[in-house]
Amino acid sequence: MRNVTQDNITDVFKGYMAEGMDPRLREIMGALVQHLHDFARETKLTHAEWQQGIAFLEGCAAIETEDRHEFVLASDVLGLSSLVDMINSRSDATSSSVLGPFHVSGAPPLEVGGDMKRNFGGPVLLAEGVIRDTDGNPIPGAEIDIWQTAPNGLYASQDEAQDTFSFHGLMNVGDDGRYAFTTVKPVEYTVPTDGPVGGILNACGRHPWRPSHLHFIVKAPGFRSLVTEVFPDDDPYLDQDTVFGVREDLVMHYVEKNAADFPEGMALSGTVTDPWLSVQFDVTLAKETG
Amino acid sequence: MRNVTQDNITDVFKGYMAEGMDPRLREIMGALVQHLHDFARETKLTHAEWQQGIAFLEGCAAIETEDRHEFVLASDVLGLSSLVDMINSRSDATSSSVLGPFHVSGAPPLEVGGDMKRNFGGPVLLAEGVIRDTDGNPIPGAEIDIWQTAPNGLYASQDEAQDTFSFHGLMNVGDDGRYAFTTVKPVEYTVPTDGPVGGILNACGRHPWRPSHLHFIVKAPGFRSLVTEVFPDDDPYLDQDTVFGVREDLVMHYVEKNAADFPEGMALSGTVTDPWLSVQFDVTLAKETG
Repeated sequence: MRNVTQDNITDVFKGYMAEGMDPRLREIMGALVQHLHDFARETKLTHAEWQQGIAFLEGCAAIETEDRHEFVLASDVLGLSSLVDMINSRSDATSSSVLGPFHVSGAPPLEVGGDMKRNFGGPVLLAEGVIRDTDGNPIPGAEIDIWQTAPNGLYASQDEAQDTFSFHGLMNVGDDGRYAFTTVKPVEYTVPTDGPVGGILNACGRHPWRPSHLHFIVKAPGFRSLVTEVFPDDDPYLDQDTVFGVREDLVMHYVEKNAADFPEGMALSGTVTDPWLSVQFDVTLAKETG
Repeated sequence: MRNVTQDNITDVFKGYMAEGMDPRLREIMGALVQHLHDFARETKLTHAEWQQGIAFLEGCAAIETEDRHEFVLASDVLGLSSLVDMINSRSDATSSSVLGPFHVSGAPPLEVGGDMKRNFGGPVLLAEGVIRDTDGNPIPGAEIDIWQTAPNGLYASQDEAQDTFSFHGLMNVGDDGRYAFTTVKPVEYTVPTDGPVGGILNACGRHPWRPSHLHFIVKAPGFRSLVTEVFPDDDPYLDQDTVFGVREDLVMHYVEKNAADFPEGMALSGTVTDPWLSVQFDVTLAKETG
């Protein structure tokens, strides 16, 4: 188009896309550029502001490594990651929630009733529940990949003082669909703030905190895999998770119990604290659809 | 917000921004996230598609250097750079057009009537015009920063065979506001296609070509600086510039003339071709507003 204008440039862009291209890519690129252009037109974006946007992307690029995913973090704090989770959630299953950047493949096996706390200090938490289908029947043999922070607020991959797989476990449930393990209550922590994303949080007057949570990936043959988290209902950051991960059905009451009531058959390194905490978190998986 | 949903997450994001933050940043971040979320909701973006988007950004990051600006190129081929140009253009001045990634500061002085062609082959082009204000009066002492491709389609910074500043010149006009120089007619060229942006062009069935052009940055004290380009009216890519840079008032007729009509007083290395080309491109600058 010889005379490109503010008003026709979006249609000119769409006209450049070839007839034979993948129709879904056409839909996505058309919608992306429509919104990008509308954003610039509505805000009357200046050259200096455009340059700040480019500098943000280049700043993320400068620190992006295999272990530091600044673009993912940007998506997280802008709410895009959580929105994609919700768009793709099944209403008849447990809500999904952000995977985050700290999942590590290859976690060691953890028996049902096993101990993930090991020699770490902090309040003992017994987490248990049943993995069910949407009819309420247990799913035998479901697999749960579990990970969380240590009491210092760091994941193993962030902390040289921890083993590679401390606070990581892979559990296969039995015929009753029940999982159970002992651990330390996870703590609140901040997302990394030393990069461009931290700069945006700061400029927007936002804090970088996430409420404490356990991460789960739950899988079973014939069912849709679920990436989710469980939060305690007394966490101060529940209503202001900086990555928008909290869903009502993922907030659970952590019940305080006496040492005398600690159940038999649960593994635990050392002695149980008095009180200890118990959380029951049942998970519903939706069937895989064709 | 404890129960973040698809429908409220955009408002939750806006609610996270502090009252005391910069109001313009609030406007920009609010509009950006509104459009980003609307894009994801409208397209029902999947996790796999989100991952492709992240992989695109990480792919740009992997090749981004001081000399390779893949994020700027992405902005260019999505039409954002040109749109920002147009949003910030003055209707009473010559249209602006993309700066592009090949401008180099520190170009050597070029006299009015000087030679930028030097020992390069190709059709001789005499470019001239007058720098005026919006009342039509010449602007004495206006400065023009000029750059273009060599006949091989490469800018000096892309081509080890060229001097750092070949086809770059910095001209100060006299009291009559007139500039003039001899050069080689620029050629069409492709934007870099060996990175993620090339992958998108290819997937969309788009070519990577730009019509041939001369780049100008025109400055004068008290006037708004203008970044612009001039295109010949017979270029095959005028109606499909891959970076959307063509504006009607920047398209000029390059007149063929006989060697005998080559004006006296113009510097030129070697002999004039028969025919040679002449383009007249007057530029209007708007006054700097307070």
